[in-house]
Amino acid sequence: MKLLRVGPAGAERPALLDAGGTRRDLSGLVADIDGGLLADDAALARLREAAASGTLPVLDAAERVGPPLARIGKIVCVGLNYHDHAAEVGAAAPAEPVLFMKAPDTVVGPHDTVLVPRGSVKTDWECELAVVIGRTARYLDSHAEAMAAVAGYALSHDVSERAFQNERGGQWDKGKNCETFNPLGPWLVTADEIPDPQALRLRTWVNGTLMQDGRTADQIFPVAEVVRYISRFMTLRPGDVINTGTPAGVAWGRPEPRPFLRAGDVVELEIEQLGRQRQDLVNA
Amino acid sequence: MKLLRVGPAGAERPALLDAGGTRRDLSGLVADIDGGLLADDAALARLREAAASGTLPVLDAAERVGPPLARIGKIVCVGLNYHDHAAEVGAAAPAEPVLFMKAPDTVVGPHDTVLVPRGSVKTDWECELAVVIGRTARYLDSHAEAMAAVAGYALSHDVSERAFQNERGGQWDKGKNCETFNPLGPWLVTADEIPDPQALRLRTWVNGTLMQDGRTADQIFPVAEVVRYISRFMTLRPGDVINTGTPAGVAWGRPEPRPFLRAGDVVELEIEQLGRQRQDLVNA
Repeated sequence: MKLLRVGPAGAERPALLDAGGTRRDLSGLVADIDGGLLADDAALARLREAAASGTLPVLDAAERVGPPLARIGKIVCVGLNYHDHAAEVGAAAPAEPVLFMKAPDTVVGPHDTVLVPRGSVKTDWECELAVVIGRTARYLDSHAEAMAAVAGYALSHDVSERAFQNERGGQWDKGKNCETFNPLGPWLVTADEIPDPQALRLRTWVNGTLMQDGRTADQIFPVAEVVRYISRFMTLRPGDVINTGTPAGVAWGRPEPRPFLRAGDVVELEIEQLGRQRQDLVNA
Repeated sequence: MKLLRVGPAGAERPALLDAGGTRRDLSGLVADIDGGLLADDAALARLREAAASGTLPVLDAAERVGPPLARIGKIVCVGLNYHDHAAEVGAAAPAEPVLFMKAPDTVVGPHDTVLVPRGSVKTDWECELAVVIGRTARYLDSHAEAMAAVAGYALSHDVSERAFQNERGGQWDKGKNCETFNPLGPWLVTADEIPDPQALRLRTWVNGTLMQDGRTADQIFPVAEVVRYISRFMTLRPGDVINTGTPAGVAWGRPEPRPFLRAGDVVELEIEQLGRQRQDLVNA
């Protein structure tokens, strides 16, 4: 299933995109799309049945799309997780996953405005495969257990301010948590539709020019290892999100003068099977 | 007011500690103690009136105390924010605040068990003054605006695993987000009762031995500057928490063999006017 949430920010309705590409209202069946739903096999089965029946109410295709997940518990991010990205920024491939955090209140819809922070001169894009957790994961041993904890996947834009991240006194979180810095969606695609998360193409365009064109096959630590590894340092719970890193092609990895984002720029991102985002950049 | 939450984990009731030290039930007046309440002056005024009336139902003094705040949005932490602590770990005083994040699901009650993570050999204590936000704070300019955004204060234990934090491939978050790593409370003390947050004594005992004995006067960046500064990098919202750093005396700052925590240890922490915590350490 492709689950989504439509409506004004903060008042989105749960929905799904049916096989014909039509948005269907789920608000008669579930209150929202959140960790509680993702952990509830019976509820998910009812949604599948309802989708198959073809009788769900049709929604307006022009309505705003919000983030596809409500009440996100935490967002754990993996840094330098693609060989080509680590190389472009002059970093060695990490021996084990580099982790940092984004706060859930950075999340916006896939086509919402992204704000360039005041004082920013190094706002950058990062197209990422997000993993959405559906089962509590704590001290997992195996990759099979890790994959069983994954409810689905989404396109995530890990917007980053490189001066805040790298030049303001330590710890990347300072450049990762500015408001609107995590567009998510359009869809939460359930794991059954993505049999191999290491076989996805990710692309980013800035003002129409292709800037990132990577493949999850290039991940240093694949999804199963990322989930297993994180579960040994913190407990992952239904409704948590993992941003699994970005491939090469960010502004930070390019020759001077680096093309960091400014008000007026347009960023578009796409991951195969997970949909497409488009954001206008505006000054905060 | 001293606000608290009592009852089983996940099913706490809102309460207050009255002037005589008696726990009084607030569940007839408010659903819970959260950012929504802290942003609602009229609701807080009703609680003050009810407290003054002396008619609120008395609660069992033996019941478990949970964290004093529900639905925490994010926990922003300041690193190396006491002169004596920076010195003891061999770090220069930072030129601007060092920020990192803890996920809200690390929060437990002030007397709950703390788990030593599997594989941990460097679990450490950090007694901290927590600031609880009551007004949205975004690009603040002045310290006066910053203090106006503060709803209150609490005692926070920023439990830390130093090997995970410093020796596992970058970014401190990896050693700060283990389960149970943020005991909070017993009380959320409203800001009117703490006219000067820079005049508080903080102490930690391990197995009865005094290990930390600091004063918030030693903070490199005081509360007003911490709130103002953070608001320029991320939006602070009602129900967010800031752990403002720890004074000297942690295990990491001591000579070898460093007395890191093990199962069976008992940690007690206290901040003047903010109450006392006691945790048993148990293996995860």
